[in-house]
Amino acid sequence: MDNKFNIVLGKDISIKDATLVTSFPGVGLTSTIAANFIVDSLKMERIGYLLSEKLPPATVVQEGVPFHPVRLYKRDELMVLLSDFAIPIQLSSAISNTILHWRDDGEYFKMIVALEGLMTEPTQEEREIRVFGVGSTERARERLKEANIGIFDHGWITGASGLMLSEGNRLEREVICLLADANPMFPDARSAAKLVEAVDEILPEIRLDLKPLYEEAEKIEENIKSQLEKAKSMIAARQAPAERMTRSYMYG
Amino acid sequence: MDNKFNIVLGKDISIKDATLVTSFPGVGLTSTIAANFIVDSLKMERIGYLLSEKLPPATVVQEGVPFHPVRLYKRDELMVLLSDFAIPIQLSSAISNTILHWRDDGEYFKMIVALEGLMTEPTQEEREIRVFGVGSTERARERLKEANIGIFDHGWITGASGLMLSEGNRLEREVICLLADANPMFPDARSAAKLVEAVDEILPEIRLDLKPLYEEAEKIEENIKSQLEKAKSMIAARQAPAERMTRSYMYG
Amino acid sequence: MDNKFNIVLGKDISIKDATLVTSFPGVGLTSTIAANFIVDSLKMERIGYLLSEKLPPATVVQEGVPFHPVRLYKRDELMVLLSDFAIPIQLSSAISNTILHWRDDGEYFKMIVALEGLMTEPTQEEREIRVFGVGSTERARERLKEANIGIFDHGWITGASGLMLSEGNRLEREVICLLADANPMFPDARSAAKLVEAVDEILPEIRLDLKPLYEEAEKIEENIKSQLEKAKSMIAARQAPAERMTRSYMYG
Amino acid sequence: MDNKFNIVLGKDISIKDATLVTSFPGVGLTSTIAANFIVDSLKMERIGYLLSEKLPPATVVQEGVPFHPVRLYKRDELMVLLSDFAIPIQLSSAISNTILHWRDDGEYFKMIVALEGLMTEPTQEEREIRVFGVGSTERARERLKEANIGIFDHGWITGASGLMLSEGNRLEREVICLLADANPMFPDARSAAKLVEAVDEILPEIRLDLKPLYEEAEKIEENIKSQLEKAKSMIAARQAPAERMTRSYMYG
Amino acid sequence: MDNKFNIVLGKDISIKDATLVTSFPGVGLTSTIAANFIVDSLKMERIGYLLSEKLPPATVVQEGVPFHPVRLYKRDELMVLLSDFAIPIQLSSAISNTILHWRDDGEYFKMIVALEGLMTEPTQEEREIRVFGVGSTERARERLKEANIGIFDHGWITGASGLMLSEGNRLEREVICLLADANPMFPDARSAAKLVEAVDEILPEIRLDLKPLYEEAEKIEENIKSQLEKAKSMIAARQAPAERMTRSYMYG
Repeated sequence: MDNKFNIVLGKDISIKDATLVTSFPGVGLTSTIAANFIVDSLKMERIGYLLSEKLPPATVVQEGVPFHPVRLYKRDELMVLLSDFAIPIQLSSAISNTILHWRDDGEYFKMIVALEGLMTEPTQEEREIRVFGVGSTERARERLKEANIGIFDHGWITGASGLMLSEGNRLEREVICLLADANPMFPDARSAAKLVEAVDEILPEIRLDLKPLYEEAEKIEENIKSQLEKAKSMIAARQAPAERMTRSYMYG
Repeated sequence: MDNKFNIVLGKDISIKDATLVTSFPGVGLTSTIAANFIVDSLKMERIGYLLSEKLPPATVVQEGVPFHPVRLYKRDELMVLLSDFAIPIQLSSAISNTILHWRDDGEYFKMIVALEGLMTEPTQEEREIRVFGVGSTERARERLKEANIGIFDHGWITGASGLMLSEGNRLEREVICLLADANPMFPDARSAAKLVEAVDEILPEIRLDLKPLYEEAEKIEENIKSQLEKAKSMIAARQAPAERMTRSYMYG
Repeated sequence: MDNKFNIVLGKDISIKDATLVTSFPGVGLTSTIAANFIVDSLKMERIGYLLSEKLPPATVVQEGVPFHPVRLYKRDELMVLLSDFAIPIQLSSAISNTILHWRDDGEYFKMIVALEGLMTEPTQEEREIRVFGVGSTERARERLKEANIGIFDHGWITGASGLMLSEGNRLEREVICLLADANPMFPDARSAAKLVEAVDEILPEIRLDLKPLYEEAEKIEENIKSQLEKAKSMIAARQAPAERMTRSYMYG
Repeated sequence: MDNKFNIVLGKDISIKDATLVTSFPGVGLTSTIAANFIVDSLKMERIGYLLSEKLPPATVVQEGVPFHPVRLYKRDELMVLLSDFAIPIQLSSAISNTILHWRDDGEYFKMIVALEGLMTEPTQEEREIRVFGVGSTERARERLKEANIGIFDHGWITGASGLMLSEGNRLEREVICLLADANPMFPDARSAAKLVEAVDEILPEIRLDLKPLYEEAEKIEENIKSQLEKAKSMIAARQAPAERMTRSYMYG
Repeated sequence: MDNKFNIVLGKDISIKDATLVTSFPGVGLTSTIAANFIVDSLKMERIGYLLSEKLPPATVVQEGVPFHPVRLYKRDELMVLLSDFAIPIQLSSAISNTILHWRDDGEYFKMIVALEGLMTEPTQEEREIRVFGVGSTERARERLKEANIGIFDHGWITGASGLMLSEGNRLEREVICLLADANPMFPDARSAAKLVEAVDEILPEIRLDLKPLYEEAEKIEENIKSQLEKAKSMIAARQAPAERMTRSYMYG
């Protein structure tokens, strides 16, 4: 397996001194909602894609424009990597390596902040949404303490976020993973708001106005649900009778 | 995986200034019926094939003549790519790359028009058939507007059509995807007629007489159904007792 | 995947001006019975094998002598390729290429005749057995007409026979596929006799006495059934308790 | 796939003029019991292994000493290849090639004798145990006749034994396969005794005292059963709760 | 498949004259508990990792710090390899080779001690926990005798421990496998204590105080159970509705 994704950037972009926030679809789509909010409220510019032939073939249409599903956004020293696909587990290592070894003028990302949801036990739904953090280095763990974010002290973190953490620890690269309690059954914008708050506290150089997120929470959830519905239709369509027949006949 | 199909052309064919219409079997076989109609009514010439060892081994017999299933047709500046196979999902990237990077004298296709069906909700069957479009570039989206074709504003498009759209957007190559509501349960010639109308409006250089399509709709549907039936027989045959035994014994 | 089989010939054999009849196990084992009859009644000599490491590992014992399962026979300008294995679908392309690109002194086979069974609908069992033909070239289709063999006008032919037909059409190489109605439930010697008759008419240079085939039909069917039974025993044996345990434990 | 196993020998061993007896676990573990008896009663020396990274990872412990599962033994001009593993079907070709192409000073094994069990129909259990033979060459078939061993005249032999037979036939290398009726449900030492008798008659240079085999039949069966039980425990252990969880979580 | 893991060490570490204790999760997590106890009570230092892109992507968080799951610890001449993952069966050979061929200044590990659990029959639960040993060489078996550890005389040992034993036997490298009866249904700290005792007797150069292990047995078990629970939550999370949909749609 190739151990990298192709990075394709629209124009000459420097990542020097940049902090990268990453978001892959997870529990409650918390990280997806959070990353979209950051991109929108900071009016970040779409600057490129990560491409791999091993990703499922599909385009995401937004406002009539078709995009690759793993996209990069930038404003000043902040970058966001937003994937509309859950990265297949076999590609986790490739995407983690691509991000960690991305170099510009000999320099890597200054810091990586990976957003994740943490499945909340159903009985805990009424409780307050907690945000935990894991830091790859001493400095990263200090940042979490300064931001009053509780430490996720024991457990497993899977996927690219997990790999970036242990590689970050090994290579002394600053990686922080933020995990918010999230409802696994539906898009959870309240959880996303808590993640955004934590990002805001971790990155003092940006200032995010959370009011619209709380106010538009429902609208955002509806947009996402509707996109998921459309995706479902397309899937069903791709498996319509005629096609299914052709396919089963071919490899049957 | 090879990331290209082999293009084999019967004679020296130029694709310069050509527009390519692509059709892979989908919902209601809408795109297949539409592409067949265009090929027939413009009396287009079969000029070659796309080949891949990864396609299922089979020949399509038409009027007693055996053909490869992914065929190319041409008349003047119009080309049609018509696949009798649903392209396996693992080959979507290969076929998309083959089409987008096909160069002739340094030039690519002037425009690519991908035909697709959109699964109509059963309750919407009585409603009018809608055609939507997605354009990869500003120019492509203007074309859709000029042709009075509604924009497919949010959602996913999978397979080679989807990949051609997002690559088209990234590389500033003009790709249009036309999607018509279609009935997923049977070959839908009325939907195909709407697709053909849209192609006719997008490509002013051709003029298609839609009357025969509406008149022969049923006959076309019947031909397709009968081909599908025959294919089913062959499948069953390939899995007849003796063979099944041999196969299971071999890898059992 | 290698796209060729290894051709191993016992001695220096010329294929110049030769016609090749191919037979892979199919519906009713029609083509297998037909090819065996041709080999026996023309007293053809076993001249070699097609080998592939991807074929299942097994030997076929006949009259106490162990042979590879894909065998070549020859007498004068006629050759027969007789496979005791259903070629796995992933090898169809390899065997088709091996046959089509087999060259001797710059020359290919003069003609290839692929034998196939066509699944007869149960309700048609009482009807007369029909034989259809598909020809890759104009000349091949004329041959079928001269031999009074009906044209298989629309449909799919899968496997190596199908690929040889469309490649034959594309490369202007003479390939004929003969398809006889056959009963999918048991070895069908009556169907095989019809296939042999068709071969006899297509190839005027040979003269086959069909009387013994009709007379020995039942004996042939019994031999085949008994071989299949023995194969089944060996399979069962290979999956006997001790072994199954070892295997499941190894990859469990 | 590599088409050879690695041959690792403990010291400088010559195979010149040697006959190789092969045994892979099969029906009734007949060949395993027979080969073990030959090794023990001739006090053969363990001289090496066949290794492949594609074999399942495991060691066989015998009298406290851990061995690789595919072992070679030798005394004078007799060698035995004894595998505790059923060779996975994908490795049949590799092990067959390794054995057939093993050369020493330009010379191959003088003869190869493959031991196999033949599943006895339950209703035949009371009947006498029959031994059949297949010979790759005229000379091999004569040997069988001289030893009064009946010919296995029609059927299939799968796995490495089958491949060695047809390759032996093609390359004119002397390969004999001995097949004894065996009970597929339990270790069958009576069947093994018949196999050993046949080996004894085929190889006049050795003289095996069969009395202990008949007398110790039950003890041998018990040893084998107990080893299988232990293997089963280890398997179960490898799939204990904690591990199963880890595994499913990893590739889930 | 690569036949080695990458060894990454934090600083310049010599393995000369070192003994390596290995532990992969198994029955009752016995070896895991034992290895953790040794690491803790000898205050061993974490010195590096074994990495492979074929391992599942995940990080293990301990006291807020994220680590790779296959870790190396060292104090004086003792090293411990502790894996939080059950090594996938396809990687057994790679990890065994990595360990056996790890050389430092031309020298390998002086000795390797592999810890394993042995599934105890439920009816034996009340009986005393037994510890058995297997030694690859005469010297290793003498060590076991000197330490009064019973010999595991017949049976199979699978996975990397098994491979290290037979390779150790073949290459005359000293490998000892210690197997303790363990309860397959829950973390078994009493069994782990017995394993540690055996290690203590095999390695006279270290002196382990077993009292805390017996006293903290329950606490250790609880810690492990709680980590497993957390892992389970993460798994469930990774398969939350939104993601499952995306995934099935992609490869459906």
